[in-house]
Amino acid sequence: MSRFNSEINWQSVIDEIAEEVQPLLSEGKVADYIPELGKVEGSQFGIAVHLINGDKFETGSANEKFSVQSISKVFSLTKAFSILKDDLWKRVGKEPSGNPFNSLVQLEHENGKPRNPFINAGAVVIADCVVTNTDNSLPEMINFIRELSGNKTIKMNDAVFQSEKQFGHRNAALAHFMKSYGNIDSDVDEVLDFYFGHCSLSMNCNDIARAFLFLANHGVHPINNRKYLTPSQAKRINSLLLTCGTYDAAGDFAFRVGMPGKSGVGGGIAAIIPGLLSMCVWSPGLDKYGNSLAGVKALELFTTKTGISIF
Amino acid sequence: MSRFNSEINWQSVIDEIAEEVQPLLSEGKVADYIPELGKVEGSQFGIAVHLINGDKFETGSANEKFSVQSISKVFSLTKAFSILKDDLWKRVGKEPSGNPFNSLVQLEHENGKPRNPFINAGAVVIADCVVTNTDNSLPEMINFIRELSGNKTIKMNDAVFQSEKQFGHRNAALAHFMKSYGNIDSDVDEVLDFYFGHCSLSMNCNDIARAFLFLANHGVHPINNRKYLTPSQAKRINSLLLTCGTYDAAGDFAFRVGMPGKSGVGGGIAAIIPGLLSMCVWSPGLDKYGNSLAGVKALELFTTKTGISIF
Amino acid sequence: MSRFNSEINWQSVIDEIAEEVQPLLSEGKVADYIPELGKVEGSQFGIAVHLINGDKFETGSANEKFSVQSISKVFSLTKAFSILKDDLWKRVGKEPSGNPFNSLVQLEHENGKPRNPFINAGAVVIADCVVTNTDNSLPEMINFIRELSGNKTIKMNDAVFQSEKQFGHRNAALAHFMKSYGNIDSDVDEVLDFYFGHCSLSMNCNDIARAFLFLANHGVHPINNRKYLTPSQAKRINSLLLTCGTYDAAGDFAFRVGMPGKSGVGGGIAAIIPGLLSMCVWSPGLDKYGNSLAGVKALELFTTKTGISIF
Amino acid sequence: MSRFNSEINWQSVIDEIAEEVQPLLSEGKVADYIPELGKVEGSQFGIAVHLINGDKFETGSANEKFSVQSISKVFSLTKAFSILKDDLWKRVGKEPSGNPFNSLVQLEHENGKPRNPFINAGAVVIADCVVTNTDNSLPEMINFIRELSGNKTIKMNDAVFQSEKQFGHRNAALAHFMKSYGNIDSDVDEVLDFYFGHCSLSMNCNDIARAFLFLANHGVHPINNRKYLTPSQAKRINSLLLTCGTYDAAGDFAFRVGMPGKSGVGGGIAAIIPGLLSMCVWSPGLDKYGNSLAGVKALELFTTKTGISIF
Repeated sequence: MSRFNSEINWQSVIDEIAEEVQPLLSEGKVADYIPELGKVEGSQFGIAVHLINGDKFETGSANEKFSVQSISKVFSLTKAFSILKDDLWKRVGKEPSGNPFNSLVQLEHENGKPRNPFINAGAVVIADCVVTNTDNSLPEMINFIRELSGNKTIKMNDAVFQSEKQFGHRNAALAHFMKSYGNIDSDVDEVLDFYFGHCSLSMNCNDIARAFLFLANHGVHPINNRKYLTPSQAKRINSLLLTCGTYDAAGDFAFRVGMPGKSGVGGGIAAIIPGLLSMCVWSPGLDKYGNSLAGVKALELFTTKTGISIF
Repeated sequence: MSRFNSEINWQSVIDEIAEEVQPLLSEGKVADYIPELGKVEGSQFGIAVHLINGDKFETGSANEKFSVQSISKVFSLTKAFSILKDDLWKRVGKEPSGNPFNSLVQLEHENGKPRNPFINAGAVVIADCVVTNTDNSLPEMINFIRELSGNKTIKMNDAVFQSEKQFGHRNAALAHFMKSYGNIDSDVDEVLDFYFGHCSLSMNCNDIARAFLFLANHGVHPINNRKYLTPSQAKRINSLLLTCGTYDAAGDFAFRVGMPGKSGVGGGIAAIIPGLLSMCVWSPGLDKYGNSLAGVKALELFTTKTGISIF
Repeated sequence: MSRFNSEINWQSVIDEIAEEVQPLLSEGKVADYIPELGKVEGSQFGIAVHLINGDKFETGSANEKFSVQSISKVFSLTKAFSILKDDLWKRVGKEPSGNPFNSLVQLEHENGKPRNPFINAGAVVIADCVVTNTDNSLPEMINFIRELSGNKTIKMNDAVFQSEKQFGHRNAALAHFMKSYGNIDSDVDEVLDFYFGHCSLSMNCNDIARAFLFLANHGVHPINNRKYLTPSQAKRINSLLLTCGTYDAAGDFAFRVGMPGKSGVGGGIAAIIPGLLSMCVWSPGLDKYGNSLAGVKALELFTTKTGISIF
Repeated sequence: MSRFNSEINWQSVIDEIAEEVQPLLSEGKVADYIPELGKVEGSQFGIAVHLINGDKFETGSANEKFSVQSISKVFSLTKAFSILKDDLWKRVGKEPSGNPFNSLVQLEHENGKPRNPFINAGAVVIADCVVTNTDNSLPEMINFIRELSGNKTIKMNDAVFQSEKQFGHRNAALAHFMKSYGNIDSDVDEVLDFYFGHCSLSMNCNDIARAFLFLANHGVHPINNRKYLTPSQAKRINSLLLTCGTYDAAGDFAFRVGMPGKSGVGGGIAAIIPGLLSMCVWSPGLDKYGNSLAGVKALELFTTKTGISIF
């Protein structure tokens, strides 16, 4: 059960998985809290696996673009962490958030400091960190993601962006609430534009798998050889992904899958095995926690079939 | 102990009270969450008592203007109640709110419907009801208050208004949060302008005592003879004032004072005895609940000395 | 609308009410959280009105015994208040509790001090005050209630008592939790025996109306002329009844009825008009808040028809 | 950075750590919520590392007995999981609990089902599972722990046990509360006796390190060759340890240390590297979260110095 078991036939593994999850593709529920997301055909499925040695494997709709949504929070966290270093943790915590119903009371209880960077309040603070510390923050962020994924054509879906802004009153509430505690420095509207902007990017499984490779390789991207984070920082983001990356199902995800990962309501899930690979699965139908239903099952099958897990 | 005891010497009673609260005038803390309020000299004190038969009594700084703040919530509630009738209660509850720390979790738990019209969230909903259903809502509201108090010179303190807007991120958070549940119809900024606007009015004790007379007289103002509410509606606002009118100290206020009343962080407290009188006390120093420290004591002395209370 | 309007025909008023609530008698739901209570026939209804001048009026099943349940909390509070005086408020608060779902978190937040004497946690503390400060506390409490009601035959329903104990794990949880904060002095089991014991008394409408007369008469029982509380203490219990006496519907009860009152899940509601009368209505079918559905309506009709209310 | 790096000099690593944590030994605060625990000398420190190949290393007071406290929850969870299999998760969740202040409201919100097996409420449910499904549950549990650790002399500290029972009102509250929801089957006192009993065991670092070896070896104890859990079950307990094993600092522990681990207020922390080793550090001084202050630092140094971590 070594993590460098060269005898794994990656292509067979993901093809089998694609086969086995077929019955689940009709069970999830496509996100429809904004109309643009609700238009996606729910039965699609894709996987891309990128090893740090450069090998790549894919199956299904691995080149179909979808809305990255919360997966983008990993990119803005990476940027904010590299700018602010450990000062970042004065602004946002590192602990799982518990169940969702107490998200606001928690903020109230802890004076406007969100529990972690992946709950919405935390991601809004991260957005503020980026906006406050960079010029042209949204274009720069998009360029950063293009560089990580090696795909210069990545861009925002403007209809999704406008929808997010129009229906984003809850995020506006979080931003104003934290600003009342002094934990938002820039203008609320500017922060939300950045936040909704980078959540509205369209990417495919291969883009995302490649963009996450630096987290599987101690902070250095194995393809472009750029160093984005120190080994310690990369390790820390991985631990946050494991404990907080899949909304209120992080414990269940760790329990079933055992990989650091980040999901988005567009149906994508990025996941990594430190020292070995990064991957992305996509299927738009969500479970009750907002994670791709078939996607979580696919990752569970992946660790079961390969015998690879961090535990 | 009849409530129409003609032998009460009202002037002596309030003069005695003004004397007895002197030692307390230095104990409260003037509100300073917005700079404009913090500039007020804290040791001032005034009372005005207006009987429904037209008699008036005053002592101390009863003609000194101060910021009405939350006392204005009674005027907007009266307007909203007269417009929407009992449909109003689909938008806002009638129950005390319990302790403050759970205000947001309560909103979350009850799908964006505030517990009562006097907590901030509830007053923002009331503001939305007025804004959505009237033209020129703020000027109209000011005219309404001028009419109730018989004082056409009442106006906003613009410095207070600007301060409220600048530091009002928590109210903006509440408004956006309720809008995410569909419980705010108009534009958030417009609703907040109205809300902060009518809280920023400057009035004196006599203005406020006279403005509340209709609540002591079954909805009909005994001076201008206009009917603002039905007897049943007036009774209901009085019950809300008793159970929810003094922030998180409503139980203590009912316990010590035993009058329906409404306080503001400007240091004013309006209170009524149904069928008999309305009154206003003012002293800027606040207790830990945000109620005028000397003002609450003055009202307690008032019910003790006169033997009048609703209980 | 004087509260001493001698022209009110009390008998006609309550007869009319009994007639008008008939359609509601099938709508409520009899409490069944303990089997013994669930056996009661739900369509019963009675009223007893006792004026402080000694006049009495009744209609319907006013002499039918039922389980007093939480109404008994007023008797133990009276006893504890007369023993501990204002020291009582170091142990229990005076504020409404807000919505029920936060009862435990409130206790946690406020270090084991319940919000008021009528929520279960508060009544358990009151029970501890009585148990710790009296010998033979349960027999003595029963004698006290017999004296107040002038009925020496009042006794516990043993089947109800045993059921309460058997299914009382939530109250045991509250008691242990408060003991962990040092707010329960006596043994938990002894306190709970007292608590369940006096809640298990069977009384009828006339018993209860008469027992509450001292609260309508400034602390002195007008029939036996004994002084149970000072005028100030009686006023304070009345204010607590108004703000906290009907579970999480206290605001609605004040709004619709406008009388200090206390309900029990046995379907009884005691209510008073200070200076005038005490009364008890009974109908076992409960609304969603645990108050007698027809009982609340009957009291609302009573204040509407007589034009009497404290507001 | 392979996890099987044979060049690591384990003895040097732990000796260096013991040296480096010296300045921290006076900084933590020995638990004193029960008097017996408060008597321990705070500046003690020990480490034991047991590789799955049988090699053992120790430094400092690795053979000094201390109170295992919450570390014992892993043993009862192992027993309950092996008895009930996945039915266990109907009784207790798998998610981190968020901050402590909401523990009871969470239980209330989720109908008496605790978030995970390591918060107190969850451990009480686990205790109930063991008590309900085994005869002589406490002696059997002690035998089980003796077998895992290979030390037949392990026994309870009776003074600690009596103290826990005497001051255990909060756990009694949790147990009664969950019983009110039907999530405790056995008698509350019996469940608490078991719970306090196995928390009161005295063990040393070598005992605990050896007892945890089966979790580092896919469920099979590498010394006695007995199979306690399936590989999948072992993996799942490891994921629970990572996400929930160190109270409200699990995220920080994962972030800094990156090993599945379980702490106790006696100052011990057990931790494992799947496929490689288990270890135990001990120092009685606690940080504000209730974890051994020097112990957490020692584990952080261990993963830093060896380059081993699951991330």
